[in-house]
Amino acid sequence: MPVDVEDFLSSWNSAVHARDTEGLAALLADEVSMGAPPYWNRIEDKAVVAHLLGIIVETITDFTYQRQWLDGAELALEFHGHVDDCELQGIDLITLGEDGLITRLDVMIRPENALVLLRERVGPRMLEFFEASGD
Amino acid sequence: MPVDVEDFLSSWNSAVHARDTEGLAALLADEVSMGAPPYWNRIEDKAVVAHLLGIIVETITDFTYQRQWLDGAELALEFHGHVDDCELQGIDLITLGEDGLITRLDVMIRPENALVLLRERVGPRMLEFFEASGD
Repeated sequence: MPVDVEDFLSSWNSAVHARDTEGLAALLADEVSMGAPPYWNRIEDKAVVAHLLGIIVETITDFTYQRQWLDGAELALEFHGHVDDCELQGIDLITLGEDGLITRLDVMIRPENALVLLRERVGPRMLEFFEASGD
Repeated sequence: MPVDVEDFLSSWNSAVHARDTEGLAALLADEVSMGAPPYWNRIEDKAVVAHLLGIIVETITDFTYQRQWLDGAELALEFHGHVDDCELQGIDLITLGEDGLITRLDVMIRPENALVLLRERVGPRMLEFFEASGD
């Protein structure tokens, strides 16, 4: 059965705008792999990806999706937003698996000062998460 | 007449891979606007955009396009490459005008260290360009 991309997008947009970490987690495949903006090494742990996404959508204010490109199970979703007073533009490159869940997600943002601010805001909260989970 | 996207992509790919600044310039509309990876403020001068693109494609080695998304005159082109030993992933978001030339180009790359390196490599050469052109 082909992936229902519109159904995915509806759930994804709802979870992003509600800053709903559980809702985001429910859209991730167990084997999800994420390329985050600051680092080259990929995150391959679903719980870590879900937590990181939750913090990112909490940290970026005025988050609005702009253009979107859909090509079968490969999606490119442009967004705008702010970190503090710093305006940013970004893109989610998403691959959906056969079950309609995200198997691959790459996130890029510009400009550099927004990327640095986002890392500075998100990093300490991810550290807390790792400490709390005993990693 | 609808824009011939395949024709544009063929010319664009040829110019990028040949590191052909003149060829890149020929694909820019006079009113082109570029959002470069490091800065929020847009570059609205065609000669500056062309020169910057030329330096970027000279600086990124092993430049290869990956996935591409085409939606009418709106394109998203993913690429991979290196700056020195630093691997990078990026995206070109391109809007074509009615004459098939680029009116808007936004470039985002990850990870942060590649973005910083690229800026450090490109910045001094753009400064030389501005000094030579008397700006």
